[in-house]
Order: sequence, then C-alpha cells, then structure tokens
Amino acid sequence: MTITMRRVIYGVGISLDGYIARPDGSVDFLFMPKDYSMAAFFRRIDVAVMGRKTYEVGMKLGGGKVSSPGMECYVFSKTLPTDAPGGVTVVRETPKVFTEGIQKKRGKDIWLMGGGELTRAFLQDDLVDELYLGILPTLIGEGIPAFPAGFPERSFARVENKSFSKGMIALRYERARKKKKK
Amino acid sequence: MTITMRRVIYGVGISLDGYIARPDGSVDFLFMPKDYSMAAFFRRIDVAVMGRKTYEVGMKLGGGKVSSPGMECYVFSKTLPTDAPGGVTVVRETPKVFTEGIQKKRGKDIWLMGGGELTRAFLQDDLVDELYLGILPTLIGEGIPAFPAGFPERSFARVENKSFSKGMIALRYERARKKKKK
Repeated sequence: MTITMRRVIYGVGISLDGYIARPDGSVDFLFMPKDYSMAAFFRRIDVAVMGRKTYEVGMKLGGGKVSSPGMECYVFSKTLPTDAPGGVTVVRETPKVFTEGIQKKRGKDIWLMGGGELTRAFLQDDLVDELYLGILPTLIGEGIPAFPAGFPERSFARVENKSFSKGMIALRYERARKKKKK
Repeated sequence: MTITMRRVIYGVGISLDGYIARPDGSVDFLFMPKDYSMAAFFRRIDVAVMGRKTYEVGMKLGGGKVSSPGMECYVFSKTLPTDAPGGVTVVRETPKVFTEGIQKKRGKDIWLMGGGELTRAFLQDDLVDELYLGILPTLIGEGIPAFPAGFPERSFARVENKSFSKGMIALRYERARKKKKK
C-alpha cells in the first residue's frame, strides 16, 4: 500500500491585483459565484492552518468560532494564549517542524489559509505543495498581499483552470521541485 | 458609420505573484510558449506607451531601439530630453490629456506596456479599458508590481481565458464602468 504524503495547499480568494484582504482585513470584495463550489476542495483537507491576524478576522466573521466539523484548526502565534477560544490549537513551532509533525500522522491534506506573513514563512521553507487561487475580477488598489515579498523563487506547474460566472476564475498549481537523487 | 473609441489596453506578462520584472528590471522569468502568439494582440494596436524605466530597459533589450514598424511609441517622462533616441516621442502631458488627444485621432487601440508607476497613474484616472495578463507559473518572490498600490477600486469583467503550454495562462478583462446618464 502506498501512503501519499499529506500536501500543503495554499488556498485563497484574491483580488485581481493579488490581495487577500483590504488593509483593515475586510474581504467584502470576495464573492462566491452560484456555479462555484468549494466542496471538492474541502473533501481533500482535514487540517487548516492560519496566522494570528487571519484567526482574529475569522473570529469576528465566524462569531467567535473558526473551526468546523472534521477540520483541525491551528493558529501560528507567539502571543496568543494556548487556550485561545474558537476551537483552535495555538502553534509555537516553526512551520517546518509543525508540517513535518502533521505529515508523520495519517490524514488528509493541509489547508494553508493565510495570511500573507505565514504564507511567506511557508514559502521560505518550501513547504507549499499546491496553490489554489480564486481570482476575483476587481482591482482593489491596496491591501494584504497573497504573496508578500521576501522568499526565494518557486516554480509551479499549472494543473487546472476553471472559469465561473461573474468573472471569477480558479487556478490550481503544483510545486515543480527538482527531483532529489535517491 | 460608427467610430469606436480607441481603447487603452494594459498588456503585460507577470509572475504568479504579480510582478512585471525583478527588482533590477530584468524579466528572465518571462517566456513565450510555442503555442502562444501575440499576433492577434498586435493587430489591434498602433500606439504603445510606457514609463521612463520601462523605456530604459527596452533600450537595453532592443539594442538602442524600442519602436517597431506600424507602432508609434510614447514615453512618459519629465526628465528625458525631447530628442531621446530609440524612435520614441517623449510625453510631458498627463496620462489623461495624452489619452484624450490620441482618442480624438483615428487609429487602433493603445497598448499601455507599463511600468508600474505609469500604470498606477492610468488607473488613478480610470483610463484603462482592458487588461491583458499573461501569467507565468513562477513565484519570483520580489519585484516591480504590475499593480502598485495607490488607486481607487476598479471592477472588471473577465472576457477571455486561454491556457498555453508550460503553465502559462492568458486572461483578458474589460473595465466594467457604471453607465453614464445620456
């Protein structure tokens, strides 16, 4: 039996100019077209990871809860108390140590929800295996970048593109790593 | 006979993280897949506009020439001499005055080549009618953004997406302006 490595998927909705949120964290420019569904994506994952700021926005939007059934939620933070509310586990480890720990256990794939700073840390350590980008057709002019500057070049292969109503398009990419010698 | 307004098209190749060039202006991450052609795009335009920095990179790459047959080239700059080399016309006007002047004459569409700062000025004045983005499958980590922060929100409608070999995808958007009362 082959055991497949649990993959880290950076999955976000972004503005056409590449922001995951406005400067104040609001995401009113994101929308879900009627013909779009995240069901197939959610079937693939059972772990969600996020940074502290994304957690705090999620707590506001979710009315004091960010977890959902069948999904373990982890928040990377040096400052949050370990008993932070909302059904989450606070992580003090580095992204690399954390990810390797999760990957040693059996389970589904890992959803990196953001935000930008945590994503940069994951990209610095080359932990991102897939990108799943929902691109909305609006330039918002300023905000929190999906890919904040400050990580080495990372090549990907495009594996899927699907267009939806109201100008949304979803693109999926897989990390194209040079194969290690065996 | 209907005379159609000459449209301003912002057409650029960008990295997956939204840069038109590396910090030093180099564009080695851009490539042209064999099954991709800009011929249809070039048939639509007879005017190209760019900022000074893009002009200077173009002069280096083009061996001292940025113009091409059948295309008028304009460079926006307050510092370049009016007799700047390379077959270009130096523009001192604002983007708005310049664009309205071109649109009063008959001709084809107008290619806004970049770079980022000129594009921001065009977006501030809502002069961009179309976006034509060729997205390459590489995160380069830092560079000159295609859409530098600092302009009001602008909504678009996606009108075309075509995928090509080696992971490139081309997306075309049209500006969705609220209709003015007649």
